Amino acid sequence: MPSRRDLANAVRALAMDAVEAARSGHPGMPMGMADIAEVLWNDFLRHDPGEPSWPDRDRFVVSNGHGSMLVYALLHLSGYDLPLQELRNFRQLHSKTPGHPEAHETPGVETTTGPLGQGLANAVGMALAEKLLAARYNRPEHAIVDHYTWVFLGDGCLMEGISHEVASLAGTLKLGKLIAFYDDNGISIDGDVRGWFTDETVKRFESYGWQVIPEIDGHNPEAIKAAIVSAQAQDERPTLICCRTVIGYGAPTKAGKESSHGAPLGAEEVAGARQALGWPHPPFEVPGEIRAAWDARLAGGMRSKEWHRQFEAYARVYPELAAELRRRLAGELPADFAERAQAFVADVQARLPEVASRKASQQAIEALAPLLPELIGGSADLAHSNLTLWKGAVDVNADPARGNYVYYGVREFGMTAIANGLALHGGFIPYDATFLVFSDYARNAVRMSALIPAPAIHVYTHDSIGLGEDGPTHQPVEHLPSLRCIPGNEVWRPADAVESAIAWRRAIERRDGPTCLVFSRQNLVCQPRDADTLAAAARGGYILSEPGNARVEAIVIATGSEVELAMAAARALDGELGVRVVSMPCTSVFESQPLEYREGVLPSWCRARVAVEAAHPDGWWRYVGLDGEVIGMDRFGASAPAAQLFEHFGITVDAVVAALRRVAAPAGR
Amino acid sequence: MPSRRDLANAVRALAMDAVEAARSGHPGMPMGMADIAEVLWNDFLRHDPGEPSWPDRDRFVVSNGHGSMLVYALLHLSGYDLPLQELRNFRQLHSKTPGHPEAHETPGVETTTGPLGQGLANAVGMALAEKLLAARYNRPEHAIVDHYTWVFLGDGCLMEGISHEVASLAGTLKLGKLIAFYDDNGISIDGDVRGWFTDETVKRFESYGWQVIPEIDGHNPEAIKAAIVSAQAQDERPTLICCRTVIGYGAPTKAGKESSHGAPLGAEEVAGARQALGWPHPPFEVPGEIRAAWDARLAGGMRSKEWHRQFEAYARVYPELAAELRRRLAGELPADFAERAQAFVADVQARLPEVASRKASQQAIEALAPLLPELIGGSADLAHSNLTLWKGAVDVNADPARGNYVYYGVREFGMTAIANGLALHGGFIPYDATFLVFSDYARNAVRMSALIPAPAIHVYTHDSIGLGEDGPTHQPVEHLPSLRCIPGNEVWRPADAVESAIAWRRAIERRDGPTCLVFSRQNLVCQPRDADTLAAAARGGYILSEPGNARVEAIVIATGSEVELAMAAARALDGELGVRVVSMPCTSVFESQPLEYREGVLPSWCRARVAVEAAHPDGWWRYVGLDGEVIGMDRFGASAPAAQLFEHFGITVDAVVAALRRVAAPAGR
Repeated sequence: MPSRRDLANAVRALAMDAVEAARSGHPGMPMGMADIAEVLWNDFLRHDPGEPSWPDRDRFVVSNGHGSMLVYALLHLSGYDLPLQELRNFRQLHSKTPGHPEAHETPGVETTTGPLGQGLANAVGMALAEKLLAARYNRPEHAIVDHYTWVFLGDGCLMEGISHEVASLAGTLKLGKLIAFYDDNGISIDGDVRGWFTDETVKRFESYGWQVIPEIDGHNPEAIKAAIVSAQAQDERPTLICCRTVIGYGAPTKAGKESSHGAPLGAEEVAGARQALGWPHPPFEVPGEIRAAWDARLAGGMRSKEWHRQFEAYARVYPELAAELRRRLAGELPADFAERAQAFVADVQARLPEVASRKASQQAIEALAPLLPELIGGSADLAHSNLTLWKGAVDVNADPARGNYVYYGVREFGMTAIANGLALHGGFIPYDATFLVFSDYARNAVRMSALIPAPAIHVYTHDSIGLGEDGPTHQPVEHLPSLRCIPGNEVWRPADAVESAIAWRRAIERRDGPTCLVFSRQNLVCQPRDADTLAAAARGGYILSEPGNARVEAIVIATGSEVELAMAAARALDGELGVRVVSMPCTSVFESQPLEYREGVLPSWCRARVAVEAAHPDGWWRYVGLDGEVIGMDRFGASAPAAQLFEHFGITVDAVVAALRRVAAPAGR
Repeated sequence: MPSRRDLANAVRALAMDAVEAARSGHPGMPMGMADIAEVLWNDFLRHDPGEPSWPDRDRFVVSNGHGSMLVYALLHLSGYDLPLQELRNFRQLHSKTPGHPEAHETPGVETTTGPLGQGLANAVGMALAEKLLAARYNRPEHAIVDHYTWVFLGDGCLMEGISHEVASLAGTLKLGKLIAFYDDNGISIDGDVRGWFTDETVKRFESYGWQVIPEIDGHNPEAIKAAIVSAQAQDERPTLICCRTVIGYGAPTKAGKESSHGAPLGAEEVAGARQALGWPHPPFEVPGEIRAAWDARLAGGMRSKEWHRQFEAYARVYPELAAELRRRLAGELPADFAERAQAFVADVQARLPEVASRKASQQAIEALAPLLPELIGGSADLAHSNLTLWKGAVDVNADPARGNYVYYGVREFGMTAIANGLALHGGFIPYDATFLVFSDYARNAVRMSALIPAPAIHVYTHDSIGLGEDGPTHQPVEHLPSLRCIPGNEVWRPADAVESAIAWRRAIERRDGPTCLVFSRQNLVCQPRDADTLAAAARGGYILSEPGNARVEAIVIATGSEVELAMAAARALDGELGVRVVSMPCTSVFESQPLEYREGVLPSWCRARVAVEAAHPDGWWRYVGLDGEVIGMDRFGASAPAAQLFEHFGITVDAVVAALRRVAAPAGR
């Protein structure tokens, strides 16, 4: 029977060896946290290597994601579909073992980590998902949702601001089944953390309402085990287990030093570590009895099968609840969703409401949310500005069983990364909200929504200088083009209530990535559309209006509040210049259309093109070319009533008319 | 003699009245914090309304910047050049009273706030500046640098993650002259904060090593005064004074409620507040004796004059120190800086070192920093990756008198906003650093660098898939175009050591805004340049190479590591196609050149254009038009050795050659 230390050393050796083979990577963290991981995985973690997506599995998140080899070693040893060859190919192209853990790349990896602090935030989202699903679906004797969320995190995660945001909220939300292990090794990349990190972390987390278990020897399995037992005894408070560890544990000269953090140890140091650890086996070799002790397939399979059996029993007693939960966990929408959403869009088109698109957004939520118990909303303390509340919104904190709305507080980054966690857990379609300008605060979490990918919906209102008097600190300029540059991120800036409804439908239906819904503060005219035009609007860019009886001589492309200006400019030029108006609420969806469609909207022969959007112009040159013009904002806004600002910054009908005349004049070509 | 309450009520009334007049704004905070502000400004704040830029003034920062009317009322009443008419024009175009406080717009406003938490961070930078200048320049009996930094902040600031980052660092840095007032009114925009904010803030800040003075009645002047006295008694620990206040204090029905936060109270409520407060005066009228009691001009003038007298005495004893400090505070570079920087650039060009541009950056720092005691560096725990340390770097924490390097820890957002504070204080040119991808974490502080504007230098290394195995979580894609969209932000991505040196020189010389310096992890060939070409390189975009004896038939534009590819492609096409290579390290500087220059580099007649940059292509269509091509990254990277990634993602010499052939072929037009 191998010792616990032997089991942990298998992880250490694989981590060292893979980093050596890749000539790149981070051996220090896996070697430091191996003992903790060994106890957690072998004694506590409820999972099934044969069914990585088993819905009631415990979630295991490594927030200090540079320790990816810890994860890969654990997955490999416990029997996931991650053969040794993948570990040998660590950090190589097309391997399942990228430099940092990536969800959807590797079976058993729950989220993509590396950008520090966000793994903890994702885990808070997962733990919240578990709590809410349990409250809604569990019944006496039928605890069908009942799992823990485990997080590993390091000094870096704790220094990052997002750790404050989400730890604070986790305390408020009473996520008692969230258990985090702090890898307190005293080292960050620049060296001994005492030079820049002197927090009393125990006290800090107590101030958030966490249970904190201090001063655990992270290399003592019994101490770790006892700490976990105490953590699990908690119902209401999340737990932080502070583990004193040695980074690069076992490395003869680099243990306890930053030199073991982010680079291969080198052949000599690895040999010394093998000796110090008592691990005589060659690189990538793990003795059979150690493999056998790690293998979790049999026990895991029994566990998941037992759960499926319980779920069948539950389904017999509560067939409707079970069907709904099954549907949610499968990420399927109700069968009639598409039809009802389409009916709502048609109804809006028929009514032509002149409202702010943020209000149109709220009306869309009001119409669609009753169909979707999986829809979970929230705002970073701007509910009544973002208009994210609806009649059926219930605070998750007040009533977890019916809760579908999170009061996130002023925590944009944490909110967004928590939404990613909710989406990753399954069973939820999260939407979050803030002012567009404060998408900046959440920026890397929006990127992570796209990279993971997590189908989260980010609602951003107050989308331009149209917000008026709050001034340049609150007026987005660069945000639309910036968000559009995130690969896989769909950004919709609807022109009116109809496009807002279409955008909401598309965001809800999208399973393969995030959507940013960008709405105005101010009222917008609702454009009339015939049936074909209405159908085309879902294609991201479409012909909203053609010149009366004239041929097309120029094209104006616009989004959001500027579509009104484009329409007015086209009307003003009626009889003088044939102007097509293209509404382009989502450039990436337009780009995904067939070439013939795009050519039909923006024919190559027409070089007389103007784009207008109250944002930085950089993204629009793609559509207007060297002969075109972009009317936008290349400087910061100002504090004044909105109408004056559009005049002041030259985003007016007159400016669009003048630009169209210029680009259409032969001299302008 | 007016009572203290009368004095505070003048602030309340002006705030109410201005918000009513603007029909927009935030009355709640000024009414809630008026008593605290009154005590601070009338009994403690060392300032001179007649000389707002007096170097040794106390700094006063309102981190909860929506309370802008508090600031404007204080400035107006104490005698700054902010006449009543400006208060009547609150939030109007061209007024000096924008919706949120803006530095450089209003005399006496120290920084631009509104985006929550960042004012506190700026203040940490200011307090650090004061501490370092004092340590370096003060001499026995000559305390010429000796001022406090005062911060007002609210629940929102405390919820934001950045408050964690900078409060933690302020504790570590022992900024004893930083004193913050927490406006603990229990209300945020969504209502009673207990639903989403349950931190024990006292305990939290104690965990950071702050002195915390709890449970001060924020409407009791004596209690406030006693707290400030205790705060000032601290040498080493920053102080947080927790003040219980009533938001909208005095409003008969809205006091203590979120309805007083962000909208005009309405005529009836204002009338009721006047009655409740005992303030019978008409809108915008302040009785003479109350004005007289607020007027700080005489006392302030005496104070600043006394300081100037002291400074002269200091200058007599320490002429060199005084001259250096004067120069630094004036924001002037040493007289020989330009010459020596130019000599360094020429030297690099002569040596042609083939190094990573991050290494070239370090060499530039090494060359220029010895000339500049005002240069203060740092990195978010990546010193040895960003290469921001140099031989003369001294940890500010270890040796404040000689310190010029901040170990910021893993706190990108806080670091960047602290750098803004250092720049705002005066006497420093800050540079900070992280990986380019993690500029995301700091995103809104980079925006604030540009909006304020604060001439901070943001060093971003590991600028593309060229960083290799760390994978897509660490590989920037959208960051270059995104940073370029921030108005006033200069983004340099140098192609080699020469351009790196030029970029550093320009960044140091720039006084009117921030610079992002974007550097490679991998080695880059150093391009040869004749004298004219070298001179042109500072213009942001320039002709690096012309086709041998052929005429120009196509243009390839590139930046950074892709300039090598462009050069190789042009060489490969030698004899077949005449290709001009344009290196474009900084698009905004190129755009600022005269039209003739730009036309000389990118002549309108040449439509056969290709841009190549290992980043999202959106920014480049402006230069290549509808007939051109952009070779870039419109998806996330991957984890593999760098060379394989460039192949995998098609950013190769062959790809550039093929694209040039396509755009130059008649069919391609």
